[in-house]
Amino acid sequence: VTAADRLTELGIQLPDPFPAFGNYVMSVRTGDTLHVTGHVPVTAGGAVTGKLGADLTAEDGYAAARAAAICLLGTLQGELGSLERVGRLVYLHATINAAPDFTEHTAVADGASDLLVDVLGERGRHARLAVGVSSLPGDVALEIQVVVELTPDLPRT
Amino acid sequence: VTAADRLTELGIQLPDPFPAFGNYVMSVRTGDTLHVTGHVPVTAGGAVTGKLGADLTAEDGYAAARAAAICLLGTLQGELGSLERVGRLVYLHATINAAPDFTEHTAVADGASDLLVDVLGERGRHARLAVGVSSLPGDVALEIQVVVELTPDLPRT
Amino acid sequence: VTAADRLTELGIQLPDPFPAFGNYVMSVRTGDTLHVTGHVPVTAGGAVTGKLGADLTAEDGYAAARAAAICLLGTLQGELGSLERVGRLVYLHATINAAPDFTEHTAVADGASDLLVDVLGERGRHARLAVGVSSLPGDVALEIQVVVELTPDLPRT
Repeated sequence: VTAADRLTELGIQLPDPFPAFGNYVMSVRTGDTLHVTGHVPVTAGGAVTGKLGADLTAEDGYAAARAAAICLLGTLQGELGSLERVGRLVYLHATINAAPDFTEHTAVADGASDLLVDVLGERGRHARLAVGVSSLPGDVALEIQVVVELTPDLPRT
Repeated sequence: VTAADRLTELGIQLPDPFPAFGNYVMSVRTGDTLHVTGHVPVTAGGAVTGKLGADLTAEDGYAAARAAAICLLGTLQGELGSLERVGRLVYLHATINAAPDFTEHTAVADGASDLLVDVLGERGRHARLAVGVSSLPGDVALEIQVVVELTPDLPRT
Repeated sequence: VTAADRLTELGIQLPDPFPAFGNYVMSVRTGDTLHVTGHVPVTAGGAVTGKLGADLTAEDGYAAARAAAICLLGTLQGELGSLERVGRLVYLHATINAAPDFTEHTAVADGASDLLVDVLGERGRHARLAVGVSSLPGDVALEIQVVVELTPDLPRT
């Protein structure tokens, strides 16, 4: 089953690749490794903003992390042409905009991890770091940044 | 002198590999690079929690970082079979749960770095980023996340 | 045009490689990838300290990020012998010491990104993660940490 099949089964339509808002690019390849810029949660209603544990609940955060992962897949689809070129999701860094007494980062980050494993299968399983930060650009609820191993058959560009 | 010898000399018994608490795995290999999930400080008395500069002193933090590094070595021992398969500790990211006016992150992170260099020798010397975050999962005192270069003789799995 | 030429055109003289203040090294090479330790902003007047959105404006932050990038280039020059050995700047992680209501991280991080692209040209374009943290070592205003792809002709050391 391909990632595209799974997305169809889940009723998810990927957004266009995410645009850059500063002087950076959305991903850089080195060897067979792709470093991807941090993605924020954007839904049909716009960017999800606010702090976990103050403005947003852990459930809100789970949904936001899932939305950010969908934005990330949109970028990967655009940059790679196909999600089948994802050989392995290696590492995911979740930075969560949170109040100082927030403790449910694991549950929030699982919103991204669950979606990525659901769509990519075993190759979606990743090492992870989830932390709470005091502020994020535009007061977005979270950012997820990943390192991806590409399939070896990807032609060098 | 092997890492196992040094651990014996230091009187350190490695814990079992650290378990995952969410939908992630403890490490992912890509090429000869191993990305390892963030490790928290757990001792015989349980997880070390609280904020540096509020609930914990820099000395407490140094001990917590050392404990997290020991947990990390337990995971590496379990995942790799032997710490001799660590060719080089490349990068260590220390995220320290800290009050806004805390400034001694370097001294805290050295608790992990000192232990890793003590056990692994020259191959334990690493690039580092140490930052203070406003909250961490379960209010743990810190997390350390590493990138490891594996020895080239490790059979591909 | 070389990076050295661009630095001359910009009137920038690189500082000496940055020293380590704890038990870490300033960079570690694995394969053709160089992981570089977090760099802080140091100018002729000393380290730039304080929190964005409280003690410092976004404009101050832009200048501080530019200063940190210059320190980073000084380290790369020292460790690599020449900035021409930078094949590609792959990833930049900006951690910004900021008040909880600060939102202009993108503008601040661009201070580093603009300088690096200005000096390195296209090979300076990088993936990025910019976050606001609650505290940093010595209350410095920010840290930038990078992953660099080296040119393939660099002799293995």
